[in-house]
Amino acid sequence: MKLWPLILFAGLSALHAETGYNAWLRYAPLDNPPALPAVVSIAAPSVLETSAQQEMIRGLRGMTGRTLREETGLPKENAIVIGTVAQLAPELHLTATAGPDAYVLKTVVSGTRHYLVIAGGDERGALYGAFALLRKIALGDPIATLDEHDTPYAPLRWVNQWDNLEGTIERGYGGRSIFWDGLKSREDMSRVSDYGRMLASLGINGCSINNVNANPKILTPELIPHIARIADAFRPWGVRVMIAVDFGSPKTVGGMDTFDPVEPKVAEWWKARFDEIYKAVPDLAGVVLKADSEGRVGPATYGRSHADAANLLARALKPHGGILFYRGFVYDHHMDWNNPKNDRGRAAYDNFHDLDGKFDDNVIVQIKNGPIDFQVREPASPLVGALEKTNQAMELQVTQEYFGQSKHNVFLVPMWKDVLDFDMHAKGASPTPVKALAAGKTFGRPLGGFVGVVNIGLDDNWSGNHLSQSNLYGYGRLAWNPDLSSRRIADEWTKLTFGSDPKVDETITSMQLSSWRTYENYTGPLGLQTLTDITGNHYGVNVEASERNGWGQWHRADENGVGMDRTVATGTGYIGQYRKPVAQMYESLATCPDDLLLFLHHVPYSYKLHNGKTVVQYIYDSHYEGADAVAGYARQWKTLRRLVDEQRYKTILAQLEYQAGQAAVWRDAVNVYFQKMSKIADAKGRVGHWPGRYEAEAMTLKGYTTRDIVPAEDASGGKGVACAAGAGTCAASLNFTGEAGWYTLRVEYFDQSNGVAHYKVWVGKQLVDEWAADLRVPSMRLDSSTSTRRTIAGIALRPGDEIRIEGEPNGGELAGLDYVEIIR
Amino acid sequence: MKLWPLILFAGLSALHAETGYNAWLRYAPLDNPPALPAVVSIAAPSVLETSAQQEMIRGLRGMTGRTLREETGLPKENAIVIGTVAQLAPELHLTATAGPDAYVLKTVVSGTRHYLVIAGGDERGALYGAFALLRKIALGDPIATLDEHDTPYAPLRWVNQWDNLEGTIERGYGGRSIFWDGLKSREDMSRVSDYGRMLASLGINGCSINNVNANPKILTPELIPHIARIADAFRPWGVRVMIAVDFGSPKTVGGMDTFDPVEPKVAEWWKARFDEIYKAVPDLAGVVLKADSEGRVGPATYGRSHADAANLLARALKPHGGILFYRGFVYDHHMDWNNPKNDRGRAAYDNFHDLDGKFDDNVIVQIKNGPIDFQVREPASPLVGALEKTNQAMELQVTQEYFGQSKHNVFLVPMWKDVLDFDMHAKGASPTPVKALAAGKTFGRPLGGFVGVVNIGLDDNWSGNHLSQSNLYGYGRLAWNPDLSSRRIADEWTKLTFGSDPKVDETITSMQLSSWRTYENYTGPLGLQTLTDITGNHYGVNVEASERNGWGQWHRADENGVGMDRTVATGTGYIGQYRKPVAQMYESLATCPDDLLLFLHHVPYSYKLHNGKTVVQYIYDSHYEGADAVAGYARQWKTLRRLVDEQRYKTILAQLEYQAGQAAVWRDAVNVYFQKMSKIADAKGRVGHWPGRYEAEAMTLKGYTTRDIVPAEDASGGKGVACAAGAGTCAASLNFTGEAGWYTLRVEYFDQSNGVAHYKVWVGKQLVDEWAADLRVPSMRLDSSTSTRRTIAGIALRPGDEIRIEGEPNGGELAGLDYVEIIR
Repeated sequence: MKLWPLILFAGLSALHAETGYNAWLRYAPLDNPPALPAVVSIAAPSVLETSAQQEMIRGLRGMTGRTLREETGLPKENAIVIGTVAQLAPELHLTATAGPDAYVLKTVVSGTRHYLVIAGGDERGALYGAFALLRKIALGDPIATLDEHDTPYAPLRWVNQWDNLEGTIERGYGGRSIFWDGLKSREDMSRVSDYGRMLASLGINGCSINNVNANPKILTPELIPHIARIADAFRPWGVRVMIAVDFGSPKTVGGMDTFDPVEPKVAEWWKARFDEIYKAVPDLAGVVLKADSEGRVGPATYGRSHADAANLLARALKPHGGILFYRGFVYDHHMDWNNPKNDRGRAAYDNFHDLDGKFDDNVIVQIKNGPIDFQVREPASPLVGALEKTNQAMELQVTQEYFGQSKHNVFLVPMWKDVLDFDMHAKGASPTPVKALAAGKTFGRPLGGFVGVVNIGLDDNWSGNHLSQSNLYGYGRLAWNPDLSSRRIADEWTKLTFGSDPKVDETITSMQLSSWRTYENYTGPLGLQTLTDITGNHYGVNVEASERNGWGQWHRADENGVGMDRTVATGTGYIGQYRKPVAQMYESLATCPDDLLLFLHHVPYSYKLHNGKTVVQYIYDSHYEGADAVAGYARQWKTLRRLVDEQRYKTILAQLEYQAGQAAVWRDAVNVYFQKMSKIADAKGRVGHWPGRYEAEAMTLKGYTTRDIVPAEDASGGKGVACAAGAGTCAASLNFTGEAGWYTLRVEYFDQSNGVAHYKVWVGKQLVDEWAADLRVPSMRLDSSTSTRRTIAGIALRPGDEIRIEGEPNGGELAGLDYVEIIR
Repeated sequence: MKLWPLILFAGLSALHAETGYNAWLRYAPLDNPPALPAVVSIAAPSVLETSAQQEMIRGLRGMTGRTLREETGLPKENAIVIGTVAQLAPELHLTATAGPDAYVLKTVVSGTRHYLVIAGGDERGALYGAFALLRKIALGDPIATLDEHDTPYAPLRWVNQWDNLEGTIERGYGGRSIFWDGLKSREDMSRVSDYGRMLASLGINGCSINNVNANPKILTPELIPHIARIADAFRPWGVRVMIAVDFGSPKTVGGMDTFDPVEPKVAEWWKARFDEIYKAVPDLAGVVLKADSEGRVGPATYGRSHADAANLLARALKPHGGILFYRGFVYDHHMDWNNPKNDRGRAAYDNFHDLDGKFDDNVIVQIKNGPIDFQVREPASPLVGALEKTNQAMELQVTQEYFGQSKHNVFLVPMWKDVLDFDMHAKGASPTPVKALAAGKTFGRPLGGFVGVVNIGLDDNWSGNHLSQSNLYGYGRLAWNPDLSSRRIADEWTKLTFGSDPKVDETITSMQLSSWRTYENYTGPLGLQTLTDITGNHYGVNVEASERNGWGQWHRADENGVGMDRTVATGTGYIGQYRKPVAQMYESLATCPDDLLLFLHHVPYSYKLHNGKTVVQYIYDSHYEGADAVAGYARQWKTLRRLVDEQRYKTILAQLEYQAGQAAVWRDAVNVYFQKMSKIADAKGRVGHWPGRYEAEAMTLKGYTTRDIVPAEDASGGKGVACAAGAGTCAASLNFTGEAGWYTLRVEYFDQSNGVAHYKVWVGKQLVDEWAADLRVPSMRLDSSTSTRRTIAGIALRPGDEIRIEGEPNGGELAGLDYVEIIR
């Protein structure tokens, strides 16, 4: 059976420019390909070894222009030989051993023959070894004499997709679901297969295929064939399928009168359901459950514990070898914000710590990296260090929910590394980094590892933009080996994705490595968390959205100071959830790191950081640094013109320029907020003073009316102008009074998602620019999410020139304007 | 009124890769832009000057990133100043003069101000000057101190489009008509406007907008508004519209009982029609007429002369200043081929020579460059040198009818130059090159010039492929200044289209300059004419298609010799139509150039050329040289990877590789034909002996049946195999007996236009390639037009390997195969 032909040759005849579809598996022609044999052989024609063989042929065909001969068994000439250690050891006299998913790459000389041997601990390991060898070749690493053993750090390296059965994806920014459409599996499964290939190339061995906020329908008989189709598409890549279920299903789907986990009939119902699914998908990996959280029902309905709930499902899965992932993301979102002792940060620990040891061995508690929810910076979740007799896995978010939603470029690996390498002091004197705890190494747990929430979609480039692919790559590489450095991962990804030109590599790698700090600088430094609209779109700035509600993401900024007091001494006691050495470090202002200060302590604005700056001045400075850095990325990117293919060059440049505008919006909004709140002026005089800026509301308006923007800091001066639908074309104009010269105009306008307004900019009678406001950002209002910069460079101005901006509303989009900047 | 905004800014926001839409007007950013003022001013806000000003702004914006200020009148600061000499001379003290369409580029210092002056002899000249300055800047020519006068060589620089009113284009290879669809003008006129801009950039000032094989409906009242719309779209670019008419229109459209040109009522009818059209299009340039040719009716119906017909229409146009282009392409296509005195080459001269002086002053006889029909090589038409008292224009074919129909790359400028520079000895001792005669210079005619048959269409890149754009560019540049060298034109076009990288420039320019000779080498050397199916698609090889029919493109190859005896002494007397010095040169074998030998003489195959080779050996050698050269182009192109944008790089590479395959088909077909006919073997032993070639008909066939190919030389061995529809998948296989090594397989298959067959190639059980035969070539048969090469490089073969080709027919396409070549 041949599954690969159309894939195998697709790349050769394609006349298209780079779409990003092949991501880091482009297999672009090498300038100096290494010497390679003409044969690639597999020990046995199994599904996984055949995948490995076909991938090797495909990859080398792309990189060297040659098609290796596919053979089975030990060839009578030089060859690449793929198989398991058990299959290959006898004939090749291998002495190495390898565990599950692990592999050996070894040059074996047998008489006059040279074999490049890929020996897996199992067939999946052989597949991973094939991808590893291809990666080496693509990176230009030497392969003449190999003797390497590579074993994954943790047994579980999974991804979750939050895909809804209707085809949308919760927090997905790369298009609609590749799995689902209209409550059925998608007709075309080729994207699933290609996703499986991408995952396999990273050593990822499982994927949950529906939203953790699960539609109960997933458990209906009608859905089983669809789950099976998806599993079939993944199987050649060694990716096992998992489904997310709703705990109330016995009632909603089963028609029963209860879903109480201690009721035998409920247990029977779950068992029957799983038995049914396993008939169609015998290698189903297991089930994910989100219970008693954010409106999902759970065991609390009947006063039962999370362990009761988890074990209920785990026991139904057990006979099939299935695993139950129980999400640790459980908290009360109706907390009283007036009570200074309340703390959502405590929830995971408080909910699960006492249950340690009560979970079955095939249960895994899936814990987010931080105690809140994928914020721009959080400490490691204290629950990670607290479970000694419970399997755990660390949930990392690859999809950029709080990180600019694929419109901003943030390479998350350095952030993940920060958490994974953090020593929890969980067991005596020897280091117990988060990664070791999550992987089950510290307390010798049978299961453990990593879960990445990926949420790729049908977009050509999967991720919504080219650079965001680096996060899936980085997650996968870390899940396999969290000891890899951020630089190594960024460098690998860049070379595989954009080629090995040293300037391209250096420029992109350095941008990637600084991008998290940059994003933090303009969105939420010092542990403030991402200062976005946390009850809304999680995208634009809204400093107070976290306050005065029950969701508990409070930073508690007021006139006197800012920060959440989580100390044991005076605060919520959260810090006490850590082991003593960690708790001591966090409890004391003297040792608490600046980066987490406001996450853990409430301090006055004038508080001096370790770096010598006051808190409020650091907020101001970091926001300018962040916005300047993004502007720098766009400038640096321009130096790659002609070194990166035209299509990706232009797409990424447009993205970085957009991000530069958004970073300025964040900078101004956050700084204005804190200057107003703290009543402490920016020592450098920048905040509130923008040279060359003209507020739209202060311009001569025709048709436009002034609007108060909510929150006020989301717009410059707290106001913008809008052109009501039906008002025709509106205009805002000013007279230029500066000296003659070349200028850049920056028009800050509001690009809502509910229409496509048109803008024109005139200098005197000359039209100098026009554009359609056709971005899709998640807001239909005049606010910081829709606030967008249009940069018009190279404009010659003379004193007395009238600069006029015309806006033509469309649909619900009001052709809004915030300001114009005129800069040299 | 602003016409340009969407055009002006389109390039800035486009995220697309290079489509070729902007051709040589890409205005790509310059690495080192020159110092330029901030203002571009026009003397008066007329349509043409405004176009010039907007183009200047657009071009400099693209190249420098700056938007010049648009002003009117003489600016009070440094500026680019555009206007007519008459407008600008007083204030700027210009002493230069310029005629119609001409321009002056001059740096004028006035006090402290520097003006870069573009002064046209008229407004159109100013527009042309603006394009000229932009071209200089794009090419990196110095512009700091300018003092240049540029005057077009001829007053008429026109293009014809053979567009049918239904939307197809006769001999058009770049998509459907930009003008017409369903007997109406196309809804969207933006392509017409953009075409006008391209033409204006070359100084082309007129365009006929419908096929010379004219649909009589063009003269109906319903069509007038549509002609007017097209004229409106062209007008801002100084391009005047012309229409082609059918001489029988008084009967077919007018309902009259005659179209006899001497009937007064016929004259009145034409006058009334033209009066009507001129009401809607007051600047209509005139009318093109093809009469008494290839089935078109004409004055011969009533025994009247071409002058009667031409003057009839010319007089109706005269009051409006219109011109009548009368096509000199008149011949009898029912000639007796058995009569050795018959000669289509004589027709133009015979038909028009005696009428010299009988045409009105607003008549132009439009003469094709050669006496036959745009063949790969023809001598200059003798009629050009024979008309002393008649206006003429030279018709050159830009669309590649006999030149590979945009699937082969042939840069035609060197061919045109050959003809234009040819001295006709028409007037005493001083040189009278064709260009001077055509332009009216030699005999002081009031009108004259050049007409290019362009036939661009709706394809993104206008021409069907990127490289073919060079022919429109080259035609326009030559029409403006036929003294420009081919190298200069190729170099300009390459830099404007692909940028100024020296390697890119040198590679493409050298390929272009040799491409005509290369194409001649493999399609019809020594004046044989293009050895294609002249009564059919004009695309593939058919050496005898020209013979034994009345169309008169005979080369008269027989067992004893080849060539058309056109001597005065023993042949058709055609040579006697030239002036004496030319006739003497052609008449004598001693002085007749090799390149035209067989066009003018019949000689034995063993006849020795000036270069020392026999005719037949030269035919063999030149075909190998031609095919090898195309293979070389593809190899050279590969060295431009990463230097040319990905999209065009891949598209052009695919085209050159296809052309390389086709050139081999031509090589083999022509050589086999002449070896069979002459019974003289190739001295180098190549013809008929193809190392590594396996005929499909000799392979082990399953389902495939052997077919005789007609003509036999169109397939290797005269046979191919086909898979009848309904036979399912067929297979042809062979056992490889060579030594182990890396090989390239070349599969020669038949890609008909009436289906999309699928092919798979297996080595043993391994699928090594597959493809869909989805090209559109103008044939539905197994023949040399559909014969297509698939190259499969990098295949490791071992003795005993079975190589199997599977073909799955589709529609009428039979998955045909000719042969497989296995080469190292």
